[in-house]
Amino acid sequence: MPSSTDRRPIIVLVRPQLGENIGKAARAMLNFGLTEMRLVAPRDGWPNPSAGPAAAGADKVLGAAKVFPTLAQAVADCANVFATTVRKRGVTKPVLTPEQAAHAVRVAPGRSAFVFGPERSGLETDDVALARAIITVPINPAFGSLNLAQAVILCAYEWSKGAVLEQPPREDLLPPAPQEELEGLIAHLEAMLEPKDYFFPEIRAEVTRRTLRSLLTKPGWNHLEIRTMRGVLSALQRKGSRRQ
Amino acid sequence: MPSSTDRRPIIVLVRPQLGENIGKAARAMLNFGLTEMRLVAPRDGWPNPSAGPAAAGADKVLGAAKVFPTLAQAVADCANVFATTVRKRGVTKPVLTPEQAAHAVRVAPGRSAFVFGPERSGLETDDVALARAIITVPINPAFGSLNLAQAVILCAYEWSKGAVLEQPPREDLLPPAPQEELEGLIAHLEAMLEPKDYFFPEIRAEVTRRTLRSLLTKPGWNHLEIRTMRGVLSALQRKGSRRQ
Repeated sequence: MPSSTDRRPIIVLVRPQLGENIGKAARAMLNFGLTEMRLVAPRDGWPNPSAGPAAAGADKVLGAAKVFPTLAQAVADCANVFATTVRKRGVTKPVLTPEQAAHAVRVAPGRSAFVFGPERSGLETDDVALARAIITVPINPAFGSLNLAQAVILCAYEWSKGAVLEQPPREDLLPPAPQEELEGLIAHLEAMLEPKDYFFPEIRAEVTRRTLRSLLTKPGWNHLEIRTMRGVLSALQRKGSRRQ
Repeated sequence: MPSSTDRRPIIVLVRPQLGENIGKAARAMLNFGLTEMRLVAPRDGWPNPSAGPAAAGADKVLGAAKVFPTLAQAVADCANVFATTVRKRGVTKPVLTPEQAAHAVRVAPGRSAFVFGPERSGLETDDVALARAIITVPINPAFGSLNLAQAVILCAYEWSKGAVLEQPPREDLLPPAPQEELEGLIAHLEAMLEPKDYFFPEIRAEVTRRTLRSLLTKPGWNHLEIRTMRGVLSALQRKGSRRQ
């Protein structure tokens, strides 16, 4: 059972299409010592009979894989969420190489997740919005064609390189709060803004929500900081002074 | 046409069995800018109709691949031959990680080759004997199951890290906003919290203000983000909907 001090990243596959690719990802993981896989809404359900043969013996990874309906639920307990994407325009999050991400995982307190999108399309904007940072493999600009298992293996490989040399994490720093606490803060603020028509007009509401989410995801606030922010919001909601 | 000063390693596949794996290796290579493939006695001859589909567009690598009857002939023009193997007993050659091998390729004069064995069995002792050094991927000792294309991609990836792969210009992230904009945000929020007695009792006010400041300083919000937060605060200050 991974403890909260487990420095190994969780591999999260979002809406994977083929069982075979889930198996290959498991095989890629185990080669470099990663064992915790989470699946978000796998297209063909789970378990998938095509996964086992492709895993080439990495059955224990598949057997322990957990399924979640949404990415938010899959990373609810993770302090450091990294979304893998090809280079995108207009991204306002830090972009790391697999090497830099591996380093970040090793030194950051709290559990980490590497999130991978579906085979064809990759992660959607709303998935990426949940992440603090982006991982992009620096690739031949004239031919970028990494498949899912290859992307997984490069990230797992980089993580494993420093794993043996790793320093104990800095326990004096509180880790970023689990994702679900951040979700609570975002929901709280949105509920306050709704009656003020902050999300009006409707046509821009989605973009506005995403902007707000990015903005509140960026800090990596810890448990205490999130609690303070919740307190700030509650204070602002009060009708008047609490000394009345 | 690669010149004698080309620093890119040649990928040599010795007696590969499946055309599909040759295609996957080509795809792995081109992702990281490698284009020169040599085949030693491919089991099913060459060209192989299964290779193209698996190459996922890396046809130019397959089209330029050269076939040789022996490994000695395939690497005849190479100054630096590296044989990839799993860890072997009784090897009397230097053993490098893919990272170390990539470095060696970049600094060594003359052309270099990375040599990979057949899918099932790997390189034979006589093949390894031709190499100056061995490349072994440090792998989970309890589960070593890298396939051919995965071994190729890890070596190609490491090589590419030090090569100057031309990347499309990176859209630079906006820097954190000037301090005065951050001060404006803090002052705005404090002014809203003051009448709600957020800073009461007085004896704790200083600590509370410092906590709030730390929390809002941590994100490093840029100019646009600060402006958005100011908009959020203004919306919360509104008496009701702005559509009245």
